Amino acid sequence: MPDHISSAYDAELQDLRRNVSEMGGVAEKMLTEATDALVRRDTPLAQAVIGADARLDVLQRETEEQAILTLVRRQPMAIDLRETVAAIRTSGDLERIGDLAKNIAKRVMAVSGQFQPQKIVVGVQHMSDLALGQLKDVLDAYAQKDDRAALDVWQRDGAIDALYTSLFRELLTYMMEDPRNITFCTHLLFAAKNIERIGDHTTNIAETVHYLVTGENLAGERPKNDRSSFETIEAET
Amino acid sequence: MPDHISSAYDAELQDLRRNVSEMGGVAEKMLTEATDALVRRDTPLAQAVIGADARLDVLQRETEEQAILTLVRRQPMAIDLRETVAAIRTSGDLERIGDLAKNIAKRVMAVSGQFQPQKIVVGVQHMSDLALGQLKDVLDAYAQKDDRAALDVWQRDGAIDALYTSLFRELLTYMMEDPRNITFCTHLLFAAKNIERIGDHTTNIAETVHYLVTGENLAGERPKNDRSSFETIEAET
Repeated sequence: MPDHISSAYDAELQDLRRNVSEMGGVAEKMLTEATDALVRRDTPLAQAVIGADARLDVLQRETEEQAILTLVRRQPMAIDLRETVAAIRTSGDLERIGDLAKNIAKRVMAVSGQFQPQKIVVGVQHMSDLALGQLKDVLDAYAQKDDRAALDVWQRDGAIDALYTSLFRELLTYMMEDPRNITFCTHLLFAAKNIERIGDHTTNIAETVHYLVTGENLAGERPKNDRSSFETIEAET
Repeated sequence: MPDHISSAYDAELQDLRRNVSEMGGVAEKMLTEATDALVRRDTPLAQAVIGADARLDVLQRETEEQAILTLVRRQPMAIDLRETVAAIRTSGDLERIGDLAKNIAKRVMAVSGQFQPQKIVVGVQHMSDLALGQLKDVLDAYAQKDDRAALDVWQRDGAIDALYTSLFRELLTYMMEDPRNITFCTHLLFAAKNIERIGDHTTNIAETVHYLVTGENLAGERPKNDRSSFETIEAET
Protein backbone atom coordinates (compact mmCIF):
# COMPACT_ATOMS: atom_id res chain seq x y z
CA MET A 1 0.00 0.00 0.00
CA PRO A 2 1.27 3.49 -0.77
CA ASP A 3 2.04 5.65 2.25
CA HIS A 4 0.27 8.71 0.90
CA ILE A 5 -3.07 9.96 -0.38
CA SER A 6 -2.32 12.48 -3.16
CA SER A 7 -3.25 11.21 -6.60
CA ALA A 8 -0.73 13.53 -8.33
CA TYR A 9 1.93 11.89 -6.18
CA ASP A 10 0.56 8.46 -7.20
CA ALA A 11 0.89 9.49 -10.82
CA GLU A 12 4.54 10.47 -10.29
CA LEU A 13 5.40 7.06 -8.87
CA GLN A 14 3.44 5.42 -11.67
CA ASP A 15 5.50 7.40 -14.21
CA LEU A 16 8.73 6.19 -12.63
CA ARG A 17 7.56 2.58 -12.85
CA ARG A 18 6.53 3.03 -16.47
CA ASN A 19 9.91 4.56 -17.38
CA VAL A 20 11.82 1.70 -15.76
CA SER A 21 9.59 -0.82 -17.51
CA GLU A 22 10.13 0.83 -20.91
CA MET A 23 13.89 0.92 -20.31
CA GLY A 24 13.83 -2.78 -19.43
CA GLY A 25 12.09 -3.62 -22.70
CA VAL A 26 14.62 -1.62 -24.74
CA ALA A 27 17.58 -3.20 -22.92
CA GLU A 28 16.28 -6.76 -23.47
CA LYS A 29 15.74 -6.08 -27.17
CA MET A 30 19.22 -4.57 -27.55
CA LEU A 31 20.91 -7.60 -25.96
CA THR A 32 18.89 -10.06 -28.08
CA GLU A 33 19.59 -8.21 -31.32
CA ALA A 34 23.27 -7.50 -30.60
CA THR A 35 23.88 -11.21 -30.10
CA ASP A 36 21.85 -12.16 -33.18
CA ALA A 37 23.84 -9.62 -35.20
CA LEU A 38 27.12 -11.09 -33.95
CA VAL A 39 26.14 -14.69 -34.66
CA ARG A 40 24.60 -13.97 -38.07
CA ARG A 41 27.16 -11.25 -39.03
CA ASP A 42 24.24 -8.91 -39.64
CA THR A 43 25.67 -5.38 -39.76
CA PRO A 44 22.37 -3.55 -40.47
CA LEU A 45 20.91 -5.15 -37.31
CA ALA A 46 24.04 -4.13 -35.40
CA GLN A 47 23.55 -0.54 -36.60
CA ALA A 48 19.96 -0.62 -35.34
CA VAL A 49 21.18 -1.70 -31.88
CA ILE A 50 23.72 1.13 -31.81
CA GLY A 51 20.96 3.58 -32.74
CA ALA A 52 18.59 2.30 -30.03
CA ASP A 53 20.97 3.25 -27.23
CA ALA A 54 20.13 6.97 -27.43
CA ARG A 55 16.55 6.29 -26.28
CA LEU A 56 17.85 4.53 -23.19
CA ASP A 57 20.12 7.45 -22.32
CA VAL A 58 17.21 9.91 -22.58
CA LEU A 59 14.95 7.72 -20.43
CA GLN A 60 17.64 7.29 -17.80
CA ARG A 61 18.22 11.03 -17.48
CA GLU A 62 14.46 11.68 -17.35
CA THR A 63 13.92 9.01 -14.70
CA GLU A 64 16.71 10.36 -12.52
CA GLU A 65 15.53 13.96 -12.79
CA GLN A 66 11.93 13.04 -12.11
CA ALA A 67 12.85 10.86 -9.13
CA ILE A 68 14.90 13.66 -7.59
CA LEU A 69 11.96 16.07 -8.03
CA THR A 70 9.73 13.53 -6.29
CA LEU A 71 12.19 13.19 -3.38
CA VAL A 72 12.35 16.97 -2.95
CA ARG A 73 8.67 17.73 -3.54
CA ARG A 74 6.98 14.81 -1.82
CA GLN A 75 9.46 13.87 0.90
CA PRO A 76 8.40 10.24 0.42
CA MET A 77 8.51 7.76 3.30
CA ALA A 78 8.82 3.97 3.62
CA ILE A 79 7.79 2.09 0.46
CA ASP A 80 7.36 5.32 -1.54
CA LEU A 81 10.90 6.42 -0.70
CA ARG A 82 12.27 2.99 -1.61
CA GLU A 83 10.30 2.97 -4.84
CA THR A 84 11.82 6.32 -5.84
CA VAL A 85 15.37 5.30 -4.93
CA ALA A 86 14.90 1.94 -6.69
CA ALA A 87 13.89 3.75 -9.89
CA ILE A 88 17.11 5.82 -9.80
CA ARG A 89 19.30 2.74 -9.24
CA THR A 90 17.56 0.46 -11.72
CA SER A 91 17.49 3.04 -14.51
CA GLY A 92 21.25 3.46 -14.01
CA ASP A 93 21.82 -0.29 -14.36
CA LEU A 94 19.59 -0.56 -17.43
CA GLU A 95 21.39 2.35 -19.10
CA ARG A 96 24.70 0.53 -18.55
CA ILE A 97 23.23 -2.71 -19.93
CA GLY A 98 22.30 -0.77 -23.08
CA ASP A 99 25.87 0.58 -23.37
CA LEU A 100 27.26 -2.95 -23.09
CA ALA A 101 24.86 -4.28 -25.76
CA LYS A 102 25.91 -1.36 -27.98
CA ASN A 103 29.56 -2.37 -27.49
CA ILE A 104 28.76 -5.91 -28.65
CA ALA A 105 27.01 -4.50 -31.72
CA LYS A 106 30.05 -2.34 -32.58
CA ARG A 107 32.21 -5.45 -32.74
CA VAL A 108 29.99 -6.96 -35.44
CA MET A 109 31.45 -4.36 -37.82
CA ALA A 110 35.00 -5.22 -36.80
CA VAL A 111 34.63 -8.93 -37.40
CA SER A 112 32.47 -8.80 -40.54
CA GLY A 113 35.32 -9.44 -42.97
CA GLN A 114 37.25 -11.77 -40.69
CA PHE A 115 37.95 -15.48 -40.81
CA GLN A 116 35.47 -16.80 -38.24
CA PRO A 117 34.72 -20.46 -37.65
CA GLN A 118 31.05 -20.56 -36.66
CA LYS A 119 31.60 -23.02 -33.80
CA ILE A 120 33.46 -20.29 -31.89
CA VAL A 121 30.40 -18.03 -31.54
CA VAL A 122 28.25 -20.79 -30.03
CA GLY A 123 29.62 -20.16 -26.55
CA VAL A 124 28.85 -16.44 -26.78
CA GLN A 125 25.28 -17.19 -27.89
CA HIS A 126 24.86 -19.53 -24.95
CA MET A 127 26.12 -16.91 -22.46
CA SER A 128 23.83 -14.30 -23.98
CA ASP A 129 20.77 -16.58 -23.70
CA LEU A 130 21.53 -17.14 -20.04
CA ALA A 131 22.00 -13.41 -19.37
CA LEU A 132 18.82 -12.55 -21.24
CA GLY A 133 16.79 -15.06 -19.20
CA GLN A 134 18.16 -13.52 -15.99
CA LEU A 135 17.36 -10.00 -17.19
CA LYS A 136 13.75 -10.92 -18.05
CA ASP A 137 13.30 -12.62 -14.67
CA VAL A 138 14.67 -9.69 -12.68
CA LEU A 139 12.51 -7.18 -14.56
CA ASP A 140 9.43 -9.31 -13.76
CA ALA A 141 10.54 -9.47 -10.13
CA TYR A 142 10.86 -5.67 -10.10
CA ALA A 143 7.43 -5.10 -11.66
CA GLN A 144 5.77 -7.56 -9.27
CA LYS A 145 7.86 -6.62 -6.20
CA ASP A 146 8.70 -10.32 -5.87
CA ASP A 147 11.61 -10.69 -3.48
CA ARG A 148 11.82 -14.47 -3.83
CA ALA A 149 12.20 -14.26 -7.61
CA ALA A 150 14.85 -11.53 -7.22
CA LEU A 151 16.87 -13.65 -4.79
CA ASP A 152 16.68 -16.52 -7.24
CA VAL A 153 18.20 -14.32 -9.98
CA TRP A 154 20.84 -13.14 -7.54
CA GLN A 155 21.86 -16.75 -6.80
CA ARG A 156 22.12 -17.67 -10.45
CA ASP A 157 24.66 -15.02 -11.53
CA GLY A 158 27.44 -17.48 -10.73
CA ALA A 159 26.39 -19.60 -13.72
CA ILE A 160 27.09 -16.76 -16.18
CA ASP A 161 30.47 -16.11 -14.57
CA ALA A 162 31.43 -19.80 -14.74
CA LEU A 163 30.48 -19.93 -18.41
CA TYR A 164 32.53 -16.80 -19.09
CA THR A 165 35.61 -18.30 -17.45
CA SER A 166 35.39 -21.45 -19.55
CA LEU A 167 34.75 -19.45 -22.73
CA PHE A 168 37.80 -17.30 -21.95
CA ARG A 169 40.00 -20.41 -21.85
CA GLU A 170 38.42 -21.78 -25.01
CA LEU A 171 38.96 -18.57 -26.98
CA LEU A 172 42.60 -18.34 -25.88
CA THR A 173 43.10 -21.90 -27.09
CA TYR A 174 41.64 -21.07 -30.53
CA MET A 175 44.02 -18.11 -30.78
CA MET A 176 47.02 -20.29 -30.07
CA GLU A 177 45.92 -22.93 -32.57
CA ASP A 178 45.71 -20.53 -35.48
CA PRO A 179 46.86 -16.88 -35.60
CA ARG A 180 44.09 -16.13 -38.12
CA ASN A 181 41.67 -16.55 -35.20
CA ILE A 182 43.33 -13.87 -33.06
CA THR A 183 41.44 -10.74 -34.14
CA PHE A 184 38.08 -12.48 -34.26
CA CYS A 185 38.56 -14.20 -30.90
CA THR A 186 39.75 -10.98 -29.27
CA HIS A 187 36.53 -9.24 -30.25
CA LEU A 188 34.54 -12.24 -29.00
CA LEU A 189 36.44 -12.09 -25.70
CA PHE A 190 35.30 -8.49 -25.26
CA ALA A 191 31.74 -9.38 -26.29
CA ALA A 192 31.71 -12.21 -23.72
CA LYS A 193 33.08 -9.83 -21.08
CA ASN A 194 30.28 -7.38 -21.92
CA ILE A 195 27.70 -10.12 -21.38
CA GLU A 196 29.32 -11.08 -18.09
CA ARG A 197 29.00 -7.44 -16.99
CA ILE A 198 25.36 -7.37 -18.11
CA GLY A 199 24.94 -10.25 -15.64
CA ASP A 200 26.51 -8.08 -12.90
CA HIS A 201 24.08 -5.24 -13.58
CA THR A 202 21.21 -7.75 -13.53
CA THR A 203 22.45 -8.85 -10.11
CA ASN A 204 22.49 -5.19 -9.01
CA ILE A 205 18.83 -4.94 -10.02
CA ALA A 206 18.05 -8.09 -8.00
CA GLU A 207 19.65 -6.39 -4.97
CA THR A 208 17.56 -3.29 -5.62
CA VAL A 209 14.35 -5.38 -5.72
CA HIS A 210 15.30 -6.92 -2.38
CA TYR A 211 15.81 -3.42 -0.92
CA LEU A 212 12.54 -2.22 -2.50
CA VAL A 213 10.50 -5.04 -0.98
CA THR A 214 12.20 -5.49 2.41
CA GLY A 215 13.99 -2.20 3.09
CA GLU A 216 17.16 -4.20 3.73
CA ASN A 217 20.40 -4.33 1.76
CA LEU A 218 21.59 -7.81 0.83
CA ALA A 219 24.42 -8.79 3.15
CA GLY A 220 27.29 -11.05 2.27
CA GLU A 221 29.40 -11.70 -0.76
CA ARG A 222 27.91 -12.23 -4.16
CA PRO A 223 28.13 -15.73 -5.57
CA LYS A 224 31.03 -15.04 -7.99
CA ASN A 225 32.46 -17.65 -10.33
CA ASP A 226 34.39 -15.40 -12.71
CA ARG A 227 37.93 -16.71 -12.43
CA SER A 228 39.02 -15.47 -15.86
CA SER A 229 41.18 -12.65 -14.45
CA PHE A 230 43.32 -15.36 -12.94
CA GLU A 231 43.39 -17.62 -16.00
CA THR A 232 46.56 -18.54 -17.80
CA ILE A 233 46.91 -20.73 -20.85
CA GLU A 234 50.30 -21.94 -21.92
CA ALA A 235 51.02 -21.88 -25.62
CA GLU A 236 52.41 -25.03 -27.20
CA THR A 237 55.90 -24.00 -28.17
CA MET B 1 26.83 31.12 -1.63
CA PRO B 2 24.60 28.48 -0.07
CA ASP B 3 20.86 29.01 -0.51
CA HIS B 4 20.04 28.32 3.13
CA ILE B 5 20.78 29.41 6.67
CA SER B 6 20.75 26.23 8.83
CA SER B 7 24.16 25.22 10.07
CA ALA B 8 23.13 21.56 10.47
CA TYR B 9 22.22 21.61 6.81
CA ASP B 10 25.61 23.19 6.01
CA ALA B 11 27.28 20.36 7.89
CA GLU B 12 25.39 17.79 5.82
CA LEU B 13 26.60 19.29 2.55
CA GLN B 14 30.09 19.52 4.00
CA ASP B 15 29.96 15.80 4.85
CA LEU B 16 28.98 14.97 1.28
CA ARG B 17 31.93 16.97 -0.06
CA ARG B 18 34.30 15.28 2.37
CA ASN B 19 33.06 11.80 1.40
CA VAL B 20 33.52 12.51 -2.31
CA SER B 21 36.97 13.91 -1.65
CA GLU B 22 38.00 10.84 0.36
CA MET B 23 36.66 8.55 -2.37
CA GLY B 24 38.65 10.48 -4.97
CA GLY B 25 41.85 9.98 -2.98
CA VAL B 26 41.26 6.23 -2.64
CA ALA B 27 40.45 5.87 -6.36
CA GLU B 28 43.62 7.74 -7.43
CA LYS B 29 45.77 5.59 -5.16
CA MET B 30 44.15 2.38 -6.44
CA LEU B 31 44.81 3.27 -10.09
CA THR B 32 48.42 4.28 -9.39
CA GLU B 33 49.17 1.12 -7.43
CA ALA B 34 47.32 -1.26 -9.77
CA THR B 35 49.44 -0.02 -12.68
CA ASP B 36 52.66 -0.16 -10.64
CA ALA B 37 51.80 -3.71 -9.62
CA LEU B 38 51.22 -4.70 -13.25
CA VAL B 39 54.44 -3.13 -14.52
CA ARG B 40 56.61 -4.43 -11.66
CA ARG B 41 54.76 -7.78 -11.34
CA ASP B 42 54.21 -6.99 -7.67
CA THR B 43 51.51 -9.37 -6.43
CA PRO B 44 51.45 -8.16 -2.78
CA LEU B 45 50.78 -4.62 -4.05
CA ALA B 46 48.04 -6.00 -6.30
CA GLN B 47 46.48 -7.71 -3.27
CA ALA B 48 46.50 -4.40 -1.40
CA VAL B 49 44.64 -2.71 -4.28
CA ILE B 50 42.02 -5.49 -4.29
CA GLY B 51 41.58 -5.04 -0.54
CA ALA B 52 41.18 -1.24 -0.79
CA ASP B 53 38.06 -1.52 -2.96
CA ALA B 54 35.80 -2.42 -0.02
CA ARG B 55 36.33 1.03 1.53
CA LEU B 56 35.16 2.68 -1.69
CA ASP B 57 32.00 0.56 -1.76
CA VAL B 58 31.14 1.53 1.82
CA LEU B 59 31.76 5.23 1.15
CA GLN B 60 29.63 5.15 -1.99
CA ARG B 61 26.69 3.56 -0.24
CA GLU B 62 27.01 6.04 2.67
CA THR B 63 27.21 9.01 0.34
CA GLU B 64 24.15 7.94 -1.60
CA GLU B 65 22.09 7.28 1.52
CA GLN B 66 23.11 10.55 3.12
CA ALA B 67 22.40 12.54 -0.05
CA ILE B 68 18.91 11.03 -0.32
CA LEU B 69 18.22 11.94 3.31
CA THR B 70 19.35 15.50 2.58
CA LEU B 71 17.04 15.70 -0.46
CA VAL B 72 14.08 14.48 1.58
CA ARG B 73 14.80 16.41 4.78
CA ARG B 74 16.07 19.72 3.43
CA GLN B 75 14.31 19.99 0.07
CA PRO B 76 17.40 21.75 -1.27
CA MET B 77 17.16 24.35 -4.02
CA ALA B 78 19.51 25.71 -6.69
CA ILE B 79 23.22 25.17 -5.89
CA ASP B 80 22.41 23.08 -2.80
CA LEU B 81 20.24 20.72 -4.84
CA ARG B 82 22.93 20.45 -7.52
CA GLU B 83 25.61 19.84 -4.89
CA THR B 84 23.58 16.95 -3.46
CA VAL B 85 22.85 15.41 -6.86
CA ALA B 86 26.49 15.87 -7.91
CA ALA B 87 27.64 13.93 -4.82
CA ILE B 88 25.38 10.99 -5.76
CA ARG B 89 26.63 10.93 -9.36
CA THR B 90 30.31 11.44 -8.58
CA SER B 91 30.42 8.84 -5.83
CA GLY B 92 28.91 6.38 -8.32
CA ASP B 93 31.63 7.12 -10.87
CA LEU B 94 34.41 6.88 -8.29
CA GLU B 95 33.09 3.54 -7.05
CA ARG B 96 33.22 2.24 -10.65
CA ILE B 97 36.77 3.58 -11.08
CA GLY B 98 37.75 1.58 -7.99
CA ASP B 99 36.19 -1.57 -9.48
CA LEU B 100 38.14 -1.08 -12.69
CA ALA B 101 41.42 -0.56 -10.82
CA LYS B 102 40.66 -3.72 -8.84
CA ASN B 103 40.19 -5.60 -12.12
CA ILE B 104 43.62 -4.46 -13.30
CA ALA B 105 45.12 -5.65 -10.02
CA LYS B 106 43.50 -9.09 -10.40
CA ARG B 107 45.27 -9.54 -13.73
CA VAL B 108 48.66 -9.11 -12.06
CA MET B 109 48.13 -12.54 -10.48
CA ALA B 110 47.21 -14.09 -13.84
CA VAL B 111 50.29 -12.84 -15.65
CA SER B 112 52.82 -13.31 -12.85
CA GLY B 113 54.28 -16.55 -14.20
CA GLN B 114 53.89 -15.64 -17.86
CA PHE B 115 56.43 -14.86 -20.57
CA GLN B 116 56.16 -11.07 -20.73
CA PRO B 117 58.49 -8.83 -22.70
CA GLN B 118 58.74 -5.62 -20.67
CA LYS B 119 58.38 -3.34 -23.69
CA ILE B 120 54.76 -4.45 -24.05
CA VAL B 121 53.66 -2.95 -20.73
CA VAL B 122 55.07 0.49 -21.58
CA GLY B 123 51.93 1.45 -23.51
CA VAL B 124 49.68 0.48 -20.60
CA GLN B 125 51.79 2.54 -18.21
CA HIS B 126 51.52 5.54 -20.54
CA MET B 127 47.73 5.22 -20.77
CA SER B 128 47.47 4.92 -17.02
CA ASP B 129 49.58 8.05 -16.44
CA LEU B 130 47.31 10.00 -18.77
CA ALA B 131 44.15 8.71 -17.06
CA LEU B 132 45.55 9.46 -13.62
CA GLY B 133 46.39 13.06 -14.61
CA GLN B 134 42.83 13.51 -15.87
CA LEU B 135 41.36 12.05 -12.69
CA LYS B 136 43.43 14.36 -10.47
CA ASP B 137 42.43 17.38 -12.56
CA VAL B 138 38.72 16.60 -12.49
CA LEU B 139 38.75 16.01 -8.72
CA ASP B 140 40.41 19.42 -8.27
CA ALA B 141 37.81 20.96 -10.58
CA TYR B 142 35.07 19.36 -8.47
CA ALA B 143 36.51 20.59 -5.17
CA GLN B 144 36.99 24.12 -6.52
CA LYS B 145 33.78 24.20 -8.59
CA ASP B 146 35.94 25.17 -11.58
CA ASP B 147 33.90 24.74 -14.74
CA ARG B 148 36.73 25.76 -17.07
CA ALA B 149 39.06 23.10 -15.67
CA ALA B 150 36.28 20.50 -15.94
CA LEU B 151 35.63 21.36 -19.59
CA ASP B 152 39.35 21.02 -20.25
CA VAL B 153 39.32 17.47 -18.81
CA TRP B 154 36.21 16.72 -20.86
CA GLN B 155 37.97 17.77 -24.07
CA ARG B 156 41.05 15.68 -23.34
CA ASP B 157 39.33 12.28 -23.00
CA GLY B 158 39.86 11.75 -26.72
CA ALA B 159 43.61 11.40 -26.11
CA ILE B 160 43.14 8.36 -23.85
CA ASP B 161 40.80 6.76 -26.39
CA ALA B 162 43.26 7.33 -29.25
CA LEU B 163 46.06 5.78 -27.20
CA TYR B 164 43.87 2.79 -26.41
CA THR B 165 43.08 2.21 -30.07
CA SER B 166 46.75 2.22 -31.04
CA LEU B 167 47.66 -0.02 -28.09
CA PHE B 168 44.92 -2.45 -29.15
CA ARG B 169 46.52 -2.78 -32.60
CA GLU B 170 49.98 -3.13 -31.11
CA LEU B 171 48.94 -5.90 -28.69
CA LEU B 172 47.19 -7.83 -31.46
CA THR B 173 50.38 -7.63 -33.52
CA TYR B 174 52.47 -9.03 -30.65
CA MET B 175 50.02 -11.92 -30.33
CA MET B 176 50.37 -12.78 -34.00
CA GLU B 177 54.16 -12.59 -33.88
CA ASP B 178 54.51 -15.11 -31.09
CA PRO B 179 51.79 -17.31 -29.56
CA ARG B 180 53.62 -17.24 -26.24
CA ASN B 181 52.47 -13.59 -26.01
CA ILE B 182 48.78 -14.42 -26.33
CA THR B 183 47.79 -14.93 -22.69
CA PHE B 184 49.84 -12.00 -21.42
CA CYS B 185 48.64 -9.66 -24.17
CA THR B 186 45.01 -10.66 -23.63
CA HIS B 187 45.23 -9.65 -19.99
CA LEU B 188 46.94 -6.39 -20.99
CA LEU B 189 44.15 -5.73 -23.50
CA PHE B 190 41.61 -5.99 -20.69
CA ALA B 191 43.76 -3.83 -18.41
CA ALA B 192 43.99 -1.18 -21.16
CA LYS B 193 40.23 -1.37 -21.69
CA ASN B 194 39.74 -0.84 -17.95
CA ILE B 195 41.88 2.29 -18.09
CA GLU B 196 39.94 3.55 -21.10
CA ARG B 197 36.74 3.12 -19.09
CA ILE B 198 38.30 4.93 -16.13
CA GLY B 199 38.73 7.79 -18.61
CA ASP B 200 35.01 7.60 -19.44
CA HIS B 201 34.04 7.84 -15.77
CA THR B 202 36.42 10.79 -15.38
CA THR B 203 34.59 12.44 -18.28
CA ASN B 204 31.28 11.75 -16.50
CA ILE B 205 32.63 13.58 -13.46
CA ALA B 206 33.65 16.52 -15.67
CA GLU B 207 30.06 16.66 -16.93
CA THR B 208 28.80 16.58 -13.34
CA VAL B 209 31.08 19.51 -12.41
CA HIS B 210 29.67 21.47 -15.35
CA TYR B 211 26.13 20.75 -14.14
CA LEU B 212 27.12 21.61 -10.56
CA VAL B 213 28.53 25.01 -11.51
CA THR B 214 26.16 26.07 -14.31
CA GLY B 215 22.97 24.04 -13.77
CA GLU B 216 23.19 22.94 -17.42
CA ASN B 217 23.87 19.51 -18.87
CA LEU B 218 26.66 19.39 -21.45
CA ALA B 219 25.10 19.20 -24.87
CA GLY B 220 26.58 17.48 -27.88
CA GLU B 221 28.60 14.38 -28.48
CA ARG B 222 31.64 13.52 -26.45
CA PRO B 223 34.99 13.77 -28.18
CA LYS B 224 35.45 10.00 -28.75
CA ASN B 225 38.51 8.51 -30.38
CA ASP B 226 38.11 4.91 -29.36
CA ARG B 227 38.01 3.08 -32.67
CA SER B 228 39.22 -0.24 -31.28
CA SER B 229 35.79 -1.91 -31.58
CA PHE B 230 36.16 -1.47 -35.32
CA GLU B 231 39.79 -2.56 -35.54
CA THR B 232 40.93 -5.55 -37.52
CA ILE B 233 44.45 -6.85 -37.90
CA GLU B 234 45.21 -9.46 -40.52
CA ALA B 235 47.53 -12.25 -39.48
CA GLU B 236 50.47 -13.02 -41.73
CA THR B 237 49.65 -16.49 -43.00
